[in-house]
Amino acid sequence: MDFNDSYYMNLALTEARKGEGKVNPNPLVGAVVVKNNKILGIGYHEVYGSHHAEVNALNMSKNSEGATIYVTLEPCSHQGKTPPCVDRIIQEKIKKCVIGTLDPNPLVSGNGVKKLQEAGIEVIVGILEEEALKLNEVFFKYIKNKNPYIFLKCGITLDGKIATRDFSSKWITNSLAREKVQYYRNKFMGIFVGTNTVLKDNPSLTCTLENKRDPFRITIDKNLEIPIDYKIIANNFDEKTIFIIENSKINSEKYNLLKNKYKIKFISLDEKDFSLEKIFKKVGEFGIDSILVEGGSSIISQIFENNLYDSGEFFIAPKILGDEKSIPFINGFSKSKIDEAFKLNNVKFNLYGDNIGLEFSK
Amino acid sequence: MDFNDSYYMNLALTEARKGEGKVNPNPLVGAVVVKNNKILGIGYHEVYGSHHAEVNALNMSKNSEGATIYVTLEPCSHQGKTPPCVDRIIQEKIKKCVIGTLDPNPLVSGNGVKKLQEAGIEVIVGILEEEALKLNEVFFKYIKNKNPYIFLKCGITLDGKIATRDFSSKWITNSLAREKVQYYRNKFMGIFVGTNTVLKDNPSLTCTLENKRDPFRITIDKNLEIPIDYKIIANNFDEKTIFIIENSKINSEKYNLLKNKYKIKFISLDEKDFSLEKIFKKVGEFGIDSILVEGGSSIISQIFENNLYDSGEFFIAPKILGDEKSIPFINGFSKSKIDEAFKLNNVKFNLYGDNIGLEFSK
Repeated sequence: MDFNDSYYMNLALTEARKGEGKVNPNPLVGAVVVKNNKILGIGYHEVYGSHHAEVNALNMSKNSEGATIYVTLEPCSHQGKTPPCVDRIIQEKIKKCVIGTLDPNPLVSGNGVKKLQEAGIEVIVGILEEEALKLNEVFFKYIKNKNPYIFLKCGITLDGKIATRDFSSKWITNSLAREKVQYYRNKFMGIFVGTNTVLKDNPSLTCTLENKRDPFRITIDKNLEIPIDYKIIANNFDEKTIFIIENSKINSEKYNLLKNKYKIKFISLDEKDFSLEKIFKKVGEFGIDSILVEGGSSIISQIFENNLYDSGEFFIAPKILGDEKSIPFINGFSKSKIDEAFKLNNVKFNLYGDNIGLEFSK
Repeated sequence: MDFNDSYYMNLALTEARKGEGKVNPNPLVGAVVVKNNKILGIGYHEVYGSHHAEVNALNMSKNSEGATIYVTLEPCSHQGKTPPCVDRIIQEKIKKCVIGTLDPNPLVSGNGVKKLQEAGIEVIVGILEEEALKLNEVFFKYIKNKNPYIFLKCGITLDGKIATRDFSSKWITNSLAREKVQYYRNKFMGIFVGTNTVLKDNPSLTCTLENKRDPFRITIDKNLEIPIDYKIIANNFDEKTIFIIENSKINSEKYNLLKNKYKIKFISLDEKDFSLEKIFKKVGEFGIDSILVEGGSSIISQIFENNLYDSGEFFIAPKILGDEKSIPFINGFSKSKIDEAFKLNNVKFNLYGDNIGLEFSK
């Protein structure tokens, strides 16, 4: 095996992923310190607000003078919640810095590289850059204009249904597929479903993984119709349920009850602004960098109509309902030519026993 | 590499597959003659009515005295279109005969083994038996009671549609998936579509592969409605188009025209017997051992309702119509619980670029 730059960068990328769900809206970052082909230190950005990956890797390293540091994202050069990482790298007398990709944050981009070079450190940028960009696609989108990254998840039958005619949908997909959904619930900062899904399913929208981080539970409740004994209200112990409401409902009796007793958070819009695009924008401004959209039909249809998704995964079960009254995952269009069909791009398949996952992106 | 019995049997199985589409309703058979770990001869049953695999392999072998013959199916012991293979094996002074699986044909089963053993030849049965059974699932089903093997093929969008609202369906799946369909058209002896599919699509139902063997084109034309300029009538140069008609249509003017001028073949039933089950039975009695069913909606729905399929493959394209007026691959049921859904078994996935094939069997 050739222990080259790609090898160590790949290690740093793998390390970085351990921070999934814990660092939003910060980026995922991993770092490895290497001297004479020996790893002196390795680390990642573990929790929002704590040490950056470079610092964790350097803290672990003994005698790192003359070493090479591999870091998936350009080290920061500005004072944030923690001191600039470039200062620490310079201080440790690192000889060479290998970077996956530049930081898209205008506060940092290129400055880190410049400061390192000025200190006489050799800098290489762009090793496994594609993987490094993919790792932080959420961060890279959100930093631009606070628009959250939208990931679509849908569990469907072979005939494209998400529920039977009586709206029962437990369980279309198998346990392996449902476990992957839990992975997404941990990875993305918010989970979003439509009003109907809450009213029909009374879901808890939490993450059942070990060492989980529950997402913010976001739904539209324009007119405050969701009963207070529903799980997302009654079980809001972590105060992470957010309702999108109509402006005129502010300070209504139910609003005050939900706010004060159940600690529900609110994002409000004018009636005329109730489009998903504006709702997502507001959720982004609230500080949520990524949204896992779990349906239902109406929400998914609006997302495709307005081209609002960044990526997603359809989980297909080998089941068939064959019932025109069952609930399709998408509806409301009148495509008369196959060429007019919505076409999913960058398709990739994942196997989950007898279920298949179809991953796609814009 | 260990050149054991499984190795040579696997070679014989691979060889056998070369006969696909050419030997129906005979079984696919492959044979390898081996002495001192050296292959003396290898062959397969190439064309219906010609030499069996054992004979082809032995004809190629020089000095096969004391050799082992591997054959995927029990050698025949009765006089058919060709002399019994066991006689030839005995005559060649073969020492050992390794067999994939016994012949289910009551005329042969066990007799071949017995005759070989009586001649002092060592016989081993059951090497890669599962693969040998799978290889000839068509033959094994058909030999029992002349019921043809039913294979279902369907190209669908992610929302389970086979055509847009105006019935246009070119092309839902990609070229790789469509090439696999051509493979099936060569493999199975007949291709079957419903009247609507013929009337809407005017398909040719031929096989476009090189060295192809076109399947029998079978459709229901109860009341002889298909126009004579349609491809399956006008292009019936090989005289392999079969219409399922109502008994009373026999000797009608159009019947005589189709029969005499266009060489259409007919299978006729009483009005009351127009079920797919009876139609398939009649097709089997006609001598067709296997049917590739290519739709449309009404035929597929009847097949699931009556549990008539043996296996199949759904080709799923990453396209979405989202149109309730587009044509679903199956319809007419009223499942109100997920547990009532048709569940496909023995699922296996095949990748065709951005299309996925979901193989299943009963």
